[in-house]
Amino acid sequence: MTDSSEHDVRVDSTNSAPTMQDALLALQRYWTERGCLVTQPFNTEVGAGTANPATMLRVLGPEPWRVGYVEPSVRPDDSRYGENPNRLQTHTQFQVILKPDPGNPQELYLGSLEALGVDIRAHDIRFVEDNWASPALGSWGLGWEVWLDGLEITQFTYFQQAGGLVLDPVSVEITYGLERILMALQGVAHFKDIAYADGISYGEIFGQAEYEMSRYYLDDADVEATKRMFDEYAAEAGRLLDARLPVPAYVQVLKCSHAFNVLDARGAISTTERAKAFGQMRTLTRRAAQLWAERRQELEHPLGVVAPLASASVPAPLPEVDAPATLLFEIGVEEMPHSDVTATATWVREVLAGKLAATRLGHGEISGYATPRRIIALVRDVQPAEPDAERTVRGPRVTAAYDADGNPTKAAQGFARGQGVDPADLVRVDVDGVEHVAVVRTDVGRGAMTVLSDVLAQVVTELRAEKNMRWRDPGLSFSRPVRYLLAMLGEAELPVAVSSLRSGTTTRVHRTAADPEVRVPSAEGYLEFLAGHGIVADAGQRRERIVADAAELAATVGGTVDTTAEAALVDEVTNLVEEPNTILGSFDERYLDLPEQILTTVMRKHQRYLPVRGADGLLPHFVAVANGDCDRDLVRAGNEAVLRARYEDAAFFWRADLKIAPEQHRLGLVKLTFEERLGSVADRADRIAAVAGTLAELAGLSTEDRTTVERAGALAKFDLASHMVVELSSLAGTMAREYAARAGETPEVARALAEMEQPRSASDTPPESTAGAVLALADRFDLLAGLFAIGATPTGSSDPFGLRRAAGGVVTILRATPAAAAITLTEGLAAAAARITAHGVELEEDALADAREFTIRRYEQQLLDAGHEHNLVQAVLPLADAPATADTTLAELEKRVGDEDFAALTAVLQRARRIVPVGTPAQYDAGDLVEPAELALHEVVTAVAARLAGRPRDLADFTTLAAPLVTPVNDFFDGVMVMAEDERLRAARLGLLATITALAEGVVDWKAL
Amino acid sequence: MTDSSEHDVRVDSTNSAPTMQDALLALQRYWTERGCLVTQPFNTEVGAGTANPATMLRVLGPEPWRVGYVEPSVRPDDSRYGENPNRLQTHTQFQVILKPDPGNPQELYLGSLEALGVDIRAHDIRFVEDNWASPALGSWGLGWEVWLDGLEITQFTYFQQAGGLVLDPVSVEITYGLERILMALQGVAHFKDIAYADGISYGEIFGQAEYEMSRYYLDDADVEATKRMFDEYAAEAGRLLDARLPVPAYVQVLKCSHAFNVLDARGAISTTERAKAFGQMRTLTRRAAQLWAERRQELEHPLGVVAPLASASVPAPLPEVDAPATLLFEIGVEEMPHSDVTATATWVREVLAGKLAATRLGHGEISGYATPRRIIALVRDVQPAEPDAERTVRGPRVTAAYDADGNPTKAAQGFARGQGVDPADLVRVDVDGVEHVAVVRTDVGRGAMTVLSDVLAQVVTELRAEKNMRWRDPGLSFSRPVRYLLAMLGEAELPVAVSSLRSGTTTRVHRTAADPEVRVPSAEGYLEFLAGHGIVADAGQRRERIVADAAELAATVGGTVDTTAEAALVDEVTNLVEEPNTILGSFDERYLDLPEQILTTVMRKHQRYLPVRGADGLLPHFVAVANGDCDRDLVRAGNEAVLRARYEDAAFFWRADLKIAPEQHRLGLVKLTFEERLGSVADRADRIAAVAGTLAELAGLSTEDRTTVERAGALAKFDLASHMVVELSSLAGTMAREYAARAGETPEVARALAEMEQPRSASDTPPESTAGAVLALADRFDLLAGLFAIGATPTGSSDPFGLRRAAGGVVTILRATPAAAAITLTEGLAAAAARITAHGVELEEDALADAREFTIRRYEQQLLDAGHEHNLVQAVLPLADAPATADTTLAELEKRVGDEDFAALTAVLQRARRIVPVGTPAQYDAGDLVEPAELALHEVVTAVAARLAGRPRDLADFTTLAAPLVTPVNDFFDGVMVMAEDERLRAARLGLLATITALAEGVVDWKAL
Repeated sequence: MTDSSEHDVRVDSTNSAPTMQDALLALQRYWTERGCLVTQPFNTEVGAGTANPATMLRVLGPEPWRVGYVEPSVRPDDSRYGENPNRLQTHTQFQVILKPDPGNPQELYLGSLEALGVDIRAHDIRFVEDNWASPALGSWGLGWEVWLDGLEITQFTYFQQAGGLVLDPVSVEITYGLERILMALQGVAHFKDIAYADGISYGEIFGQAEYEMSRYYLDDADVEATKRMFDEYAAEAGRLLDARLPVPAYVQVLKCSHAFNVLDARGAISTTERAKAFGQMRTLTRRAAQLWAERRQELEHPLGVVAPLASASVPAPLPEVDAPATLLFEIGVEEMPHSDVTATATWVREVLAGKLAATRLGHGEISGYATPRRIIALVRDVQPAEPDAERTVRGPRVTAAYDADGNPTKAAQGFARGQGVDPADLVRVDVDGVEHVAVVRTDVGRGAMTVLSDVLAQVVTELRAEKNMRWRDPGLSFSRPVRYLLAMLGEAELPVAVSSLRSGTTTRVHRTAADPEVRVPSAEGYLEFLAGHGIVADAGQRRERIVADAAELAATVGGTVDTTAEAALVDEVTNLVEEPNTILGSFDERYLDLPEQILTTVMRKHQRYLPVRGADGLLPHFVAVANGDCDRDLVRAGNEAVLRARYEDAAFFWRADLKIAPEQHRLGLVKLTFEERLGSVADRADRIAAVAGTLAELAGLSTEDRTTVERAGALAKFDLASHMVVELSSLAGTMAREYAARAGETPEVARALAEMEQPRSASDTPPESTAGAVLALADRFDLLAGLFAIGATPTGSSDPFGLRRAAGGVVTILRATPAAAAITLTEGLAAAAARITAHGVELEEDALADAREFTIRRYEQQLLDAGHEHNLVQAVLPLADAPATADTTLAELEKRVGDEDFAALTAVLQRARRIVPVGTPAQYDAGDLVEPAELALHEVVTAVAARLAGRPRDLADFTTLAAPLVTPVNDFFDGVMVMAEDERLRAARLGLLATITALAEGVVDWKAL
Repeated sequence: MTDSSEHDVRVDSTNSAPTMQDALLALQRYWTERGCLVTQPFNTEVGAGTANPATMLRVLGPEPWRVGYVEPSVRPDDSRYGENPNRLQTHTQFQVILKPDPGNPQELYLGSLEALGVDIRAHDIRFVEDNWASPALGSWGLGWEVWLDGLEITQFTYFQQAGGLVLDPVSVEITYGLERILMALQGVAHFKDIAYADGISYGEIFGQAEYEMSRYYLDDADVEATKRMFDEYAAEAGRLLDARLPVPAYVQVLKCSHAFNVLDARGAISTTERAKAFGQMRTLTRRAAQLWAERRQELEHPLGVVAPLASASVPAPLPEVDAPATLLFEIGVEEMPHSDVTATATWVREVLAGKLAATRLGHGEISGYATPRRIIALVRDVQPAEPDAERTVRGPRVTAAYDADGNPTKAAQGFARGQGVDPADLVRVDVDGVEHVAVVRTDVGRGAMTVLSDVLAQVVTELRAEKNMRWRDPGLSFSRPVRYLLAMLGEAELPVAVSSLRSGTTTRVHRTAADPEVRVPSAEGYLEFLAGHGIVADAGQRRERIVADAAELAATVGGTVDTTAEAALVDEVTNLVEEPNTILGSFDERYLDLPEQILTTVMRKHQRYLPVRGADGLLPHFVAVANGDCDRDLVRAGNEAVLRARYEDAAFFWRADLKIAPEQHRLGLVKLTFEERLGSVADRADRIAAVAGTLAELAGLSTEDRTTVERAGALAKFDLASHMVVELSSLAGTMAREYAARAGETPEVARALAEMEQPRSASDTPPESTAGAVLALADRFDLLAGLFAIGATPTGSSDPFGLRRAAGGVVTILRATPAAAAITLTEGLAAAAARITAHGVELEEDALADAREFTIRRYEQQLLDAGHEHNLVQAVLPLADAPATADTTLAELEKRVGDEDFAALTAVLQRARRIVPVGTPAQYDAGDLVEPAELALHEVVTAVAARLAGRPRDLADFTTLAAPLVTPVNDFFDGVMVMAEDERLRAARLGLLATITALAEGVVDWKAL
């Protein structure tokens, strides 16, 4: 620490990277100069600047609010004793709220990066979809994480709802993660090495607190005391709300929230407790928000009220064109989520086509394009105007239109007057053979400008994505704000007005371009014009370029990129850029010692990098796709640093985890609460092991498989206690495999531990090994039996324990694993229920039946999703307790669909079933039968029954063996009246038919066919 | 709120007053540019920036630390629903810590005011003693409050101790009160009107929170829940300390502290609870501080260690002067407390005189002067050097020094060698008649420079005040930092080195002077030289000028200033300035409606203003004394604004209080806890009323007085519940009188209510009215009996309930009030004890006796302080149960001191007392007496006893009546051997003497005489 330093707040040229302190002051200054208040961090612990009342309460209601403040954000869960280079229990946010949305918040934001000394032209700065929702705060918004060379440095959100209230006006929230930004700018690899001020590092100042607060949050906070405090805070909040004091009430909610976070970091929150606490906090926050809004109204909005933006308009009449021309229409948006890009282009093209079709305007081909920032529709050969059209308006019948003298009646006169014509001008038309009087009108065709101005406005008004938001515009809603419209017909401006927007003839190119807004000379050649500004409007072209460049770059290091396997990722990155700038980066070879899945998971999930493979596996390279022109070396270095930090994290976890034997990890599960009544994750793992043993017996597994099941069962779920899985939960199972293998477990055990987590989703593959399948089943049966036992079944869209996925998994595994196919749902659930009961949980009535039914519904859904006929699916559902059997039957059924013999058999069975009253015993006294047809049938039935006796109910089998029934049954119905007057006779006949339906029982649900 | 504003952080010329936001940024910037870190407010509620670990922990240990931060400081007790213009539950501090003391912190601070846009040349800026101590934090420091035209805007403290640890190096703490500063700069009268940023006021942003948080703190916080939380936090802190985690532990201490403050604001803290809570928090803070210091050491002080300042030195040898000259020595200090100014000047003069006397340096008159910033010693006619002096060093006897041949012996040779002379140079000296060899040495006189350099260094080293501090200098300690030394002998520099200081020939004049450091041409005429720079070094001159100017200014408005009655205040202001600049200010006449004592209390206590009186009482004017040259209109306006704000407060309280009847106020006392076991203040007031009734009977009060006592007793202490007394506790009693009179109580009752609070201190006057005296006694007897009953007696310097003052008050009242003189301490305490017992408190053993003894000790002290002879005081102490009686006896005794008859009487009584064994019965059989002397004595004793019988033990009486005993007793002792062999005879003689001592018993303690 130096005694005096005379440095300026702004970064000077001799020292390109600002200190942390410089950065804080630069941001305060930048935003103050843009009309923001500077306020202080909140004086009780908050998890983020968002929670500060200067955001959370101020975004409510109609008052304007512009503020910037630093917020040391406390995340007990991120405590790492100061050891992790990137993770801190308290990190520093700079929070900006712009209310209302100023219309150019992204541009303002980029200006602030420049104020921080970031050369935004050299770096790759991107707005990547990242939405935000805080269940505890009843709040959500849409927006982005901002990437600086692949590093997330800022959260940028348009608040849509807060405290359960819809926000009007919408606020823009910009949250800078300062440690990350500073690490990147200063090029340091550990937060402790950040230069906080001249000559003093972050670690020197905050290192001890980081360690000690980590100790507190992770190890030393008193759980019971903290729980009591949570309750005290919650009670106090409630009382204050009753007293109509939203401010102190909200402070108590924040204290609640921090207490909860401490408990969570201590691993002391069960799923049930979590749900309960979130519910409490959400309710309190909503009440506080509601009350704040009310109180502000009572105070008559001391800060004033935001005026809505005025509506735009177009001149009337519009100047028209006189020759066919190309229509160019571009909707300029802030960065759309990648999944919206192509979908919206298609939508716009189709809707535009539809709307044009409803006019008489002639036009040629319509094409649509999109990048993250624009949606383009081009329509060729738009005619200058609609042709005129004649239209006949029908009046009264001729018979009623003229009196005997041929003079128009009152009806005709009335009609003519209504149409504004002379009765003499009425003509006659034939309508379904009846003559009516009529008026023939000429609709003059509108000019193209007029038609298009209207149609395009409608398109924008109706524009929607999967998830939509509002911004300052009073009338629009879309995935992200629409900021400008470009509309031209040939070289002419096409005025369009939608809500507050008025179209023009300029477009926006890269924000970092010397002139980011450029005039478009003509609709013709617009794609080439854009290309001239570095923008590839066609997603297909962008994708091709990425694939080609990736291949070329990978080749330079002797590798390849499997763009087929990575198709989804390639699609994603294609729509994250306007101009792909593919960059090859490298990482230290030593990270290749880590399991490949760790490396690729980090690349794909976190960074959207394409892995590069050589002949022998992964190479220490990756392909990143930057946007537009930038300093490739700088951007490469930045991306490499990000990946290095992430791999360093992973390597740290890897090494730390490897120091602990799987058994030790397994013991750690005791500390993870699964569910209050169902115990810890360790309890659950114990149950899974036990259930797997039972299933192994039921399935008659080989000794080897049973040994594997037993050992893997003893270690089940151990990796949930590992650092790696705590950080990257998608690696559960994978890490179990890796750690188990390295701890000397057999390959089979390692594999079973991995596979027991499969399938992870509906599209994931089930376990390949029998042992893995059995463990995976045990896992899911335990989940289903347990949660149904305590009545925690999914409702509506809420399925916190993933029971739908679990049930689907059971079905998938049973269908895919011949060795396990013998296990029925009933057996599996019963085995799991036995362990649940042993744990001391009493099953709710019908719990198992409900769980079974719930699982069968998943099976039904799988079949329907796979395109099987509804009636055939229904027919095999009775067999679904063993889904593999049902599958076989369904396959048989489908083979027989259209088969005449099968149809005939089905028909006779149906015929018999329909006539036999429910409950009729399948027995009769053959001696009571009298008619030859029934005697003949009796013989055939007896023979068929004898052949079917003792055989499993199998459709193929049954169809073959029961085929002889068809003719005699039909003969019987033709020749015999079943409902004879004689009771005995009638009983015998019904008994005979009941015997037939009984023979068919359980094969399929015949009535569904 | 404007959407965008392009104002600069620094105040520009077009807008002289900064906004709050400008101010925050300007301070951040200013201190950052001076090497301070910028950190954030703490994220749990703190009462002041001091509590933030960035101060509280960082000031500990040897590491350097420079920091500046904003701290929203939460003071639940200051909640006023946003209504009070100056009082907020959360006010904004800007806190600066400079560690180590940079040597010029005041100058740096003044620079920061300029950065805020304050014209420090135009305003009157002063550093007025204000020390700081936080019992809860185990911390204290010395320093100032900084006044801007009479408004306290900053706390400036040199931290000496924190968390119980002595600080080395010392830290400078500067705490700006931003709301106050901004109100002054912007000229607004209510905090809500502060411009927070362009176009948005403080009230618009924080008004609602101020109201609601006030509601929470004053009315709605759940007391029981908050108490539970206090306990939880304290327990957690303790656990974390056990775990050696000072940072999270300290956070919990802060939460404790806030919970305590909330409880306090809710009026839910009893004195006992307060003491207990403070004890807990102090212990926890000390442990946290201790542990932090240990941990930093373990971490090897990551920020480094402050190097101590190097010692200064002077050249050797010093250049000497060759003619007599005047010595000028000035010790330049930062503003001393007013009480140190004159005392230190005297001290320095005397110590310098003493030290010079120990040298041989000749000199003339020594004079001393002082201002708050300098101590000056001038010594006339200092001789250029000490005269030489001869000194004889004695060696062996001559007989042993020379052998028979007259040659020096070994002894003589050895002596000569030891003295460094030739044996031949030894001379002979006569010592008590014995000849010795000797060496005569000449001590060459040192030059004046050499002598003075040494002496002056010693003076500075020994410099002390009543309360001393340390600063960065490693070797000095004084009331405030010594910053420079000026030492000259005539026109020559006199080099002096003390610790890190080296004297020079410059002095410092007003800090706002164009050139604040000036070279001094010569010691001669220094006072005139200073006067030329506007500094009046002589306190007497300053005082005269103030008195004269005040009179002159007061006369301009037809008033006077009673500088005699205000002598103490005049003395104080004299020593608050270097150059008195007396200013007449005015206030709105309507405030004169307030009782005068309110107005003058505010003027004197808070503002050090002299009240201006006219013929009919107070005039709406005041005299303030500014320092040095300034813009008098600006300073006047500033001071007027401060007074207006204070009067506005007072008027608000006055009006609010008057709306409530005294009985209603009285009911409010139920909510004020006095002491847990002794109940509320209402309980105490009830007891006082009852005890006063008993005392009135004991004293035999008139019916009128009894009626007054009864009514005033019923209202006793009611004003403690009033706003005014809550704010200005010194007005207790005074406000009772004012409110009671206005509520229609009789003048006697009003007076009794006022007087029952008297005497407030040892120097205050006791009640004049009998009713007031009886109530005042009841008040103090209740306090003594109650606190002794529960064992809460004072220990050492701790006397939280002011029992010493109470006991002293009892004595003063009993001595001063003839109508109450009949009440004994025993009776009064017994009456009070009866009520305490009725309240359900059991008295500890000996409680009343201890209380009585404690009170008598105060009486003894009063007598000794008044200069009475120790032995006479001891003699009357046995009578002190009725102090007035003891007073009378003491007066008698003092009259008789030196009286031969009295001495004779005393002597015989002593003689008798000495020979009579303790326990000898005062009886004898006269028939056993045989000698004439004893028979004669018997007769006289019998006669004296008869005359004394039934009379009160009164010294005058006794002296007269017992006088006849003298001769017979002396005769008896001369002629009779008391210890006869005959037992009966011996017993009779002893009995006779015992009878004499018994007669004298209880008059005074004769053995003390």
